[in-house]
Amino acid sequence: MDALKERIKAEGKLLGEDILKVDSFINHQVDVELMEAIGRDIAEHFQGQGVTKIFTIESSGIAPAVFAARYMGVPLVILKKRSSKTLSQNLWQTEVISYTKDVSYELTLSKDYISDQDHILIVDDFLANGEAATGALRLIRKAHATVAGLAVLIEKVYQPGRAKLEEQGVAVYAQTRISHCGEHEIVFAE
Amino acid sequence: MDALKERIKAEGKLLGEDILKVDSFINHQVDVELMEAIGRDIAEHFQGQGVTKIFTIESSGIAPAVFAARYMGVPLVILKKRSSKTLSQNLWQTEVISYTKDVSYELTLSKDYISDQDHILIVDDFLANGEAATGALRLIRKAHATVAGLAVLIEKVYQPGRAKLEEQGVAVYAQTRISHCGEHEIVFAE
Repeated sequence: MDALKERIKAEGKLLGEDILKVDSFINHQVDVELMEAIGRDIAEHFQGQGVTKIFTIESSGIAPAVFAARYMGVPLVILKKRSSKTLSQNLWQTEVISYTKDVSYELTLSKDYISDQDHILIVDDFLANGEAATGALRLIRKAHATVAGLAVLIEKVYQPGRAKLEEQGVAVYAQTRISHCGEHEIVFAE
Repeated sequence: MDALKERIKAEGKLLGEDILKVDSFINHQVDVELMEAIGRDIAEHFQGQGVTKIFTIESSGIAPAVFAARYMGVPLVILKKRSSKTLSQNLWQTEVISYTKDVSYELTLSKDYISDQDHILIVDDFLANGEAATGALRLIRKAHATVAGLAVLIEKVYQPGRAKLEEQGVAVYAQTRISHCGEHEIVFAE
């Protein structure tokens, strides 16, 4: 997606190897017009595939996911990050270990907002090691729902996220793909 | 706002005294069409007041705030909840104690996304004790910016949030106002 790629080139900040910050338009300050274009593009990519719900993981993916849901005309479900297992019969939970941030959390979904009839599109900001997305997949499988795919704004091609997901039969759509983050440059894969 | 009020009546869940859950359409599953109507209503209420940015606190206010920002044509800034003070010259931080959840966090804003020229509208889902909103206010004042007001979807009239904010000269706009949460009923103030 050209508008996003240009914006990453112009405003993406490299903080040491592999750390790309996009805080000025995605993760802290949010360019809402760009998020709407991103959401529309995701909706177009997955149109006609019977998506019933969009799932995102709090909180960086919410803004683009809101617009993807709006253009697809489906509800959005925000998967929660809890610090510990909650004693409740009505939740699906799975532990996610984030290598990037060196923390783990219980990805949490109320059983009320998923059924075995759902066909779910996962939307997130980054795909790197794929921990969050595979956590979301585990929750979807626990509920015997199906997965339409994963849409991300930025894929780090040099990390194993895509391979992990494709091995499990998940269609991955990345709007931009970064093949290398050098000290001073961001190299796109295509 | 009638559509929101009707939805709270139909789907709001009372869990003990004072705990109102709106997880089926605001906080966990998100009715995006309703969030768009809510965002448009907030934008209309504050139009012509020179708002330059919308601030929200992660993560429950993001969905309505995204649409308010879209209809006002201004950027959104998501204030972050950090567990501890970060050693950085480039951040504004202030401690917020959440009585509702019995936790405290450092509300965090990069200095890059606020200036003394900004006139800021704060958007959040609930107004109860006003801790999060007054934390946002402190950050805005540290940066010598000004406040256009606070817009919330649901105000708990029986808690002191509005009084605290109005004492400080902040215009509060609540789309729905709840005067009482009984064991089995939600009573609206108007």
